[in-house]
Amino acid sequence: MRYSQYLLTTLKETPADAEIVSHQLMLRAGMIRKVAAGIYNYLPFGLRAVRKVEEIVRQEMEKAGALELLMPMVVPAELWQESQRWEQYGKELLRLKDRKDSDFCLGPTHEEVITDIVRGAVRSYRQLPLNLYQIQSKFRDEIRPRFGLMRGREFIMKDAYSFDLDEAGADAAYEKMFQAYRRIFERCGLKFRAVEADTGNIGGSSSHEFMVLAESGEDAIVSCSSCQYAANVEKAELIATAEATPEPAMDLQKVATPGMKSVEEVTTYLEVTPQRLVKTLVLQTDGGETVAVLLRGDRELNDIKLCRLLGCNEVTLASEEVVQQVTGAPSGFAGPVGLELRVLADHEVAAMADFIVGANAADSHYAGVNLQRDFTVEAFADLRLTVAGDPCPRCASPLESWRGIEVGHIFKLGTKYSEALGATVLDDQGKDRVLIMGCYGIGIGRTVASAIEQNHDENGIIFPLPIAPFQVLIAVVNPKDEAVLKASEDLYQSLQQAGVEVLLDDRDERPGSKFKDADLLGIPLRLTVGTRGLKEEAVELQRRKDGERTMLPLAGAAELLAEEVRQALAL
Amino acid sequence: MRYSQYLLTTLKETPADAEIVSHQLMLRAGMIRKVAAGIYNYLPFGLRAVRKVEEIVRQEMEKAGALELLMPMVVPAELWQESQRWEQYGKELLRLKDRKDSDFCLGPTHEEVITDIVRGAVRSYRQLPLNLYQIQSKFRDEIRPRFGLMRGREFIMKDAYSFDLDEAGADAAYEKMFQAYRRIFERCGLKFRAVEADTGNIGGSSSHEFMVLAESGEDAIVSCSSCQYAANVEKAELIATAEATPEPAMDLQKVATPGMKSVEEVTTYLEVTPQRLVKTLVLQTDGGETVAVLLRGDRELNDIKLCRLLGCNEVTLASEEVVQQVTGAPSGFAGPVGLELRVLADHEVAAMADFIVGANAADSHYAGVNLQRDFTVEAFADLRLTVAGDPCPRCASPLESWRGIEVGHIFKLGTKYSEALGATVLDDQGKDRVLIMGCYGIGIGRTVASAIEQNHDENGIIFPLPIAPFQVLIAVVNPKDEAVLKASEDLYQSLQQAGVEVLLDDRDERPGSKFKDADLLGIPLRLTVGTRGLKEEAVELQRRKDGERTMLPLAGAAELLAEEVRQALAL
Repeated sequence: MRYSQYLLTTLKETPADAEIVSHQLMLRAGMIRKVAAGIYNYLPFGLRAVRKVEEIVRQEMEKAGALELLMPMVVPAELWQESQRWEQYGKELLRLKDRKDSDFCLGPTHEEVITDIVRGAVRSYRQLPLNLYQIQSKFRDEIRPRFGLMRGREFIMKDAYSFDLDEAGADAAYEKMFQAYRRIFERCGLKFRAVEADTGNIGGSSSHEFMVLAESGEDAIVSCSSCQYAANVEKAELIATAEATPEPAMDLQKVATPGMKSVEEVTTYLEVTPQRLVKTLVLQTDGGETVAVLLRGDRELNDIKLCRLLGCNEVTLASEEVVQQVTGAPSGFAGPVGLELRVLADHEVAAMADFIVGANAADSHYAGVNLQRDFTVEAFADLRLTVAGDPCPRCASPLESWRGIEVGHIFKLGTKYSEALGATVLDDQGKDRVLIMGCYGIGIGRTVASAIEQNHDENGIIFPLPIAPFQVLIAVVNPKDEAVLKASEDLYQSLQQAGVEVLLDDRDERPGSKFKDADLLGIPLRLTVGTRGLKEEAVELQRRKDGERTMLPLAGAAELLAEEVRQALAL
Repeated sequence: MRYSQYLLTTLKETPADAEIVSHQLMLRAGMIRKVAAGIYNYLPFGLRAVRKVEEIVRQEMEKAGALELLMPMVVPAELWQESQRWEQYGKELLRLKDRKDSDFCLGPTHEEVITDIVRGAVRSYRQLPLNLYQIQSKFRDEIRPRFGLMRGREFIMKDAYSFDLDEAGADAAYEKMFQAYRRIFERCGLKFRAVEADTGNIGGSSSHEFMVLAESGEDAIVSCSSCQYAANVEKAELIATAEATPEPAMDLQKVATPGMKSVEEVTTYLEVTPQRLVKTLVLQTDGGETVAVLLRGDRELNDIKLCRLLGCNEVTLASEEVVQQVTGAPSGFAGPVGLELRVLADHEVAAMADFIVGANAADSHYAGVNLQRDFTVEAFADLRLTVAGDPCPRCASPLESWRGIEVGHIFKLGTKYSEALGATVLDDQGKDRVLIMGCYGIGIGRTVASAIEQNHDENGIIFPLPIAPFQVLIAVVNPKDEAVLKASEDLYQSLQQAGVEVLLDDRDERPGSKFKDADLLGIPLRLTVGTRGLKEEAVELQRRKDGERTMLPLAGAAELLAEEVRQALAL
């Protein structure tokens, strides 16, 4: 591609409304352009990277025996009513009406549609196993779309769905997809981890997320320092320690804590560490119940674990008004002593004695508080967020923590959808069996964005070669020098004939400006063709990754680069 | 692909709700599956044909210098308000609201979005010419979606948009696309014609439709028997003949026509040919105006020509009530004599004398009617549909008529959108110039459907090789015979290695049922591997197109077919 004939407008300034690096760089490099909140155009340079990821995904899906099809974006309500998600799914499901006032939604995921296809087309166990996938634009009406392609509303997703006769088959399908996903992200050139994850509103019994490691990642993950265990912190279990509750050593006493509300304020004021305090969270479920949860002062609540325990979808901190009503005190002073509320506690609290809690009275806490003697709890459970240093639930070695971006998610769905929609087949005994499903997603645009999040420097993008929009950039230092232009054109032709994707920067621009754009665009290999080098029959090769420069003899340059590209793609 | 591992469920019966052949065959061959009215799943076998067309389109677009990008399906109202199409476009534009109650639509076409991209990214004439295209799912809320992919609501379209500095550039871009479209449909293996067409609600100064010729086509087209002229009948002009109006020979007289309303009834009753009658259509415009239009008895109104003349969007036949009110008679007896209404007449009427018209009284007509003497008209104009035998507007040779399916449509848009959205560039004098646009669409799914409409027989589809889901089908007559299975597997492997796309029918089914499916699926080349042939070291080749059978030596069969496929694709 000749730059002079390409639509590629770079920006020098960082756009004000782009918060994270990948978003900034994708805008600056002319990869995407905003149409509305969370809705983007993929401009030619950006679409090339997207297509690269799509092609890798497609190849690995086919290798794993999955069949490509294409479902519609506009889906009739009837199918979603059969699975009851029409009512259950929140406002992320964009519901709409057609000209005849019939209800439809924009598909955020396609379990219902695929299950409908399979119940229609598959009747016998002999047609199994089956894995069907598509690469398609989906829509989720996110309440706060942000970070460019990271959390968009309209986004390109690969979604696959497996159908098996029994659990063993379903497990094999899941494992196949797990391995295919590993290969996909390896082939994309990304550092990633597969972690155990929560199943959220897709449902099912277990799931793994594939996380591209990046400091800006929205997800916190932990992995074991010695075994293979890795999980999203939302999901990471903590095994209750077997420690017995210590005997009380102190008497219960009320202490004045005037205006001291936060854990930090109270413990600083009382000159103790936060580990000596038990904080009491007053929470409300989406079902309208109010509960109190006790955590050690330095810990954070894992609301997903709590929801699972309570069987609700959401918990939120109770309002000041509710806190006042149930504790008789302003918020900041809640405590379990004398509290007439359902009280749950994290396992860790069971190993504490002589601690501090709020006194359910303004400006007051209790010190020397002890379980059983001063109050009781309904249950102890695993309710806190895991942190680095916590013991691995498998081998008890200390966990390490990372930040990551979820680019893939695979689920063992079980029979949630096949049962609701009646997708059955006849087995070899002629008996109806409900199909066992799995579903497997990859965010295509998000994979590109997270590759940039993981691979960039202060000057711009550093594309992993397998997903780079072009593999080689030829910077023509002075296109008015005929020898330079001819050598550049020859290189361009030779590389293209060798199957290399080349962007020929033939623009009438200053060399400095071309080099700046080259750094911003992040094309892995740069050939600089200039008057001086040509005198020696040489061109300069610079790798975007390390900035390393080498002079190459002009004669063999194209062949050398073609070979380097071939090797990088063969990985 | 092994049939036993493929999702391909064929139907023996013709689905009741499929009216045209391509729709019936696509359902029976497991290519598509209905989700809702005008909304389909593309099943694996169908998607392969769709992808073939997409790839041919993509290659020809790139050859023509167009750049691929991808715009969203969900488009904010603001852009459509800028072009004023938000208000003008009818109910085919599916409007919706997001969770924040902002207005959006599902893009039925993307002039606004692309013009917004270009006004943001292109500032100088040096970035021109530019042609940007996408292949994307679009949505049009058709009032009567029908015929499967022929007139769907969600459908895959290639849309390209060109931007030029001046008319000469825009003409060159249009010509480039015209030639690219010819190559695309040639490469798809289709018989087609490019015809002059109306610009409809896209707008612009001129346009061509690409019509796949098929008897079931919804569009009637005419082409000249001697020159290059071809046009949609909606668009085909008729030059007024220079004939003078003949002198009256008869007196005006009222004749009784009891209960005779239609042209056929009246002329049969009065024992004259329909050419002796002038019919009077009482019509209402969408603007609320009522007009009368006069046509020779055997002619049909071209409502598009009439709308252009009247400056309205739609005309419909007036209701019985309105006819009664303006003519004083029931419908069937309207006529221009004494009619107090705006009266327009087709050119042809000007050459008539002593004709018959309705008398504006029940059961009565006038005979011996003559222009000027008995009534006057406001204007004569070209208002009728062209038919076979009419003179070519270019060379006056007789026109021939065809039926066709519109698969592509290209438009000279001019500045309609660039002016409305302010898309300008600086020219070489530093002056702002409004961009001149063209737009170019291809219905991808409809191309596949029309290929089937044009290429089928009573047994099923006859795919043109370049867009066939697979190029070769191997029918394994008896997979339980190990020699047969091995020979089939070897052929399958050899063909695949040679780059041929093969469907290996390894199912445990009767040969007759496999042959029936093979005919239905329409894969161009079929190899039949059976015990008898193998005894002679031979396999049978049958071409789907002509049913011709040849025995091939097993040894060279794969090579021979690979060569045939290569040659067919090289066209």
